Amino acid sequence: MTAPDPAAVIDLLGVLAYGELSAFDRMAHDARMAPSLGLRAALAEKAELEMSHYRRLAGRLRELGIAPEQAMQPFVAAVETFHARTEPSTWGEALVKAYVGDGLAADFYREVATFVDAPTQALVNEALADSGNAEFAIREVGALIRSDQTAASRLSLWGRRLVGEAISQAQHVAAERDALTLLIVGGAGDLNGISALLERLTDKHVARMDAIGLSS
Amino acid sequence: MTAPDPAAVIDLLGVLAYGELSAFDRMAHDARMAPSLGLRAALAEKAELEMSHYRRLAGRLRELGIAPEQAMQPFVAAVETFHARTEPSTWGEALVKAYVGDGLAADFYREVATFVDAPTQALVNEALADSGNAEFAIREVGALIRSDQTAASRLSLWGRRLVGEAISQAQHVAAERDALTLLIVGGAGDLNGISALLERLTDKHVARMDAIGLSS
Repeated sequence: MTAPDPAAVIDLLGVLAYGELSAFDRMAHDARMAPSLGLRAALAEKAELEMSHYRRLAGRLRELGIAPEQAMQPFVAAVETFHARTEPSTWGEALVKAYVGDGLAADFYREVATFVDAPTQALVNEALADSGNAEFAIREVGALIRSDQTAASRLSLWGRRLVGEAISQAQHVAAERDALTLLIVGGAGDLNGISALLERLTDKHVARMDAIGLSS
Repeated sequence: MTAPDPAAVIDLLGVLAYGELSAFDRMAHDARMAPSLGLRAALAEKAELEMSHYRRLAGRLRELGIAPEQAMQPFVAAVETFHARTEPSTWGEALVKAYVGDGLAADFYREVATFVDAPTQALVNEALADSGNAEFAIREVGALIRSDQTAASRLSLWGRRLVGEAISQAQHVAAERDALTLLIVGGAGDLNGISALLERLTDKHVARMDAIGLSS
């Protein structure tokens, strides 16, 4: 494998860093919808974790000689559009967004990280380490579904909307960031490789929705 | 010194824990007003730190056999009223609030912590450890004042409002939480002790405002 384009590595770290920074304050905000102080603290602690991931990614960008601000800037609009279109209006939506959004992003970044240098790959995997998020979502979404018969279908629909908006914004980014797109296409090898990657992402999303009792 | 009333210790940890939890999401929200991604990340990192303090305080409450939710509940209304009445509308106000609010709260809690058992005192002091907040505020408020002649007087006024609202909410809490109030009055010794405590808090607030170029 040839050395990855440094611009693509910076793009990858930049979009990931801004994703963490914005997930942080969105999730901190959404935590206030929690039905109890204990659940509010639990989602706030998840938000806190995004920030510790952010710090590591920003540190790596500085090591590479790039200001994190500069690396993140090209991705602000797409990420903010995603959040604006998927603003949760209930605690259930906030929970599903934290779980599905984090899961999708993590799967995608882990795939792309295999196309870059080993230190960057290690850092991305570390930054994305799961942190008890799954059990929390499974338990709390489970409780919501059991107490409200219509919640499952509403939240399943919400999960599809989250994925649709994520794909839509990812397409915008792909259209604008040539180096990053070439990294992914080159890493996947060819069109078959790209389809296989998308299939793996979809399979994992379906498994994730199943795990919390929702259909995808 | 006689052993402190356990109810007062739980109240102290409870109000401090809810203060940290609410400072966390308020600051995370305010960070979005930052004029650059770098400053937004800097305030977000301060918010993150409040959450790590929260976790330690919640842990101590659990050690004492109390659910953090239960210990925090009596203080939600006062803290939320404080925040609702001091919602920053500019980046400068957000900066001054983070700096003055944290500083005032830290000074107060450090004073009260000397009245309780050594492990609780150590934990409170640790949870309140300064974290480069001062330098950040001095640098950024300084920059605002230099670039806008009227900013200093507006932000000085804002500082006074923050203190006024904090005192007002502290009085509500004092009127409602007998054990905590007795702890403070008992710890200070007598009325002279209380005046001396208030004078120390005021002196430190004045010094803090001076340090960022604002009048108090």
